[in-house]
Amino acid sequence: MKYEVVAIGLVEKTEREVNLIIESQFRNALINLNQFSHAIVLWWIHERDTPEDRMTLLVKPWKAKGRERSGIFACRSPLRPNPIGHSVVRVASVDVENGVVALDQIDAQDGTPVLDIKPYLPSSDKVDNAKIPWWFEHLERRYSA
Amino acid sequence: MKYEVVAIGLVEKTEREVNLIIESQFRNALINLNQFSHAIVLWWIHERDTPEDRMTLLVKPWKAKGRERSGIFACRSPLRPNPIGHSVVRVASVDVENGVVALDQIDAQDGTPVLDIKPYLPSSDKVDNAKIPWWFEHLERRYSA
Repeated sequence: MKYEVVAIGLVEKTEREVNLIIESQFRNALINLNQFSHAIVLWWIHERDTPEDRMTLLVKPWKAKGRERSGIFACRSPLRPNPIGHSVVRVASVDVENGVVALDQIDAQDGTPVLDIKPYLPSSDKVDNAKIPWWFEHLERRYSA
Repeated sequence: MKYEVVAIGLVEKTEREVNLIIESQFRNALINLNQFSHAIVLWWIHERDTPEDRMTLLVKPWKAKGRERSGIFACRSPLRPNPIGHSVVRVASVDVENGVVALDQIDAQDGTPVLDIKPYLPSSDKVDNAKIPWWFEHLERRYSA
């Protein structure tokens, strides 16, 4: 089964700012997003949207120590059957009228299509004591207490 | 801009079990997923894939106290421009050969198309002290320490 997704906006990165620029017809969907400190952004990994990349199943994840070969459902490689990027971000400000969501950072490039924004809810998104394999244990926490 | 996503498998729910059944051509991508205690599952909210639901921008989120009207980018409503569901789950077991990922639970129905599985990495996915508005504060934590 195949389904269609649309870009609701783009990542805009300058030397000083990281913004999501939301298209005019979707801007009212930003109402109340400013009530949340963090959000989950889903984006399209457009540079990896090729048949070869989408059929790659095993990689050596580049953020991993020792670089164990893993299935792509066991790492965060941009090569995936559905190249959907997932980033937890800090929401600095939300301008509904102009469709601008200012972030601290996002691990997507300038010009990346954005698919969805979801508020970060600790009740469903925060896991304490999650177990990960040794080859990911050196990664630094992005949003610590 | 429009992009195409494919189902990599389905949610299978019985009285006793909750599984992701992964299609044969994608099963090797599960290698090493058993090294993680939790995962992020992206799924297609197929029952809400209608033009009307996809152009709904404001709702009263049903898990919210007081039911403030919110933009859909400020709640977890299944009505979204791109109906992509996001669930953090506990991975009970992974059978690569038969393409079965056993979970504790998932807030998607039996037969739901699955788009992606990503390992839960506390370094990028865990946020301590995330701020949420009062109308979501009563929600119970799913995976506490």
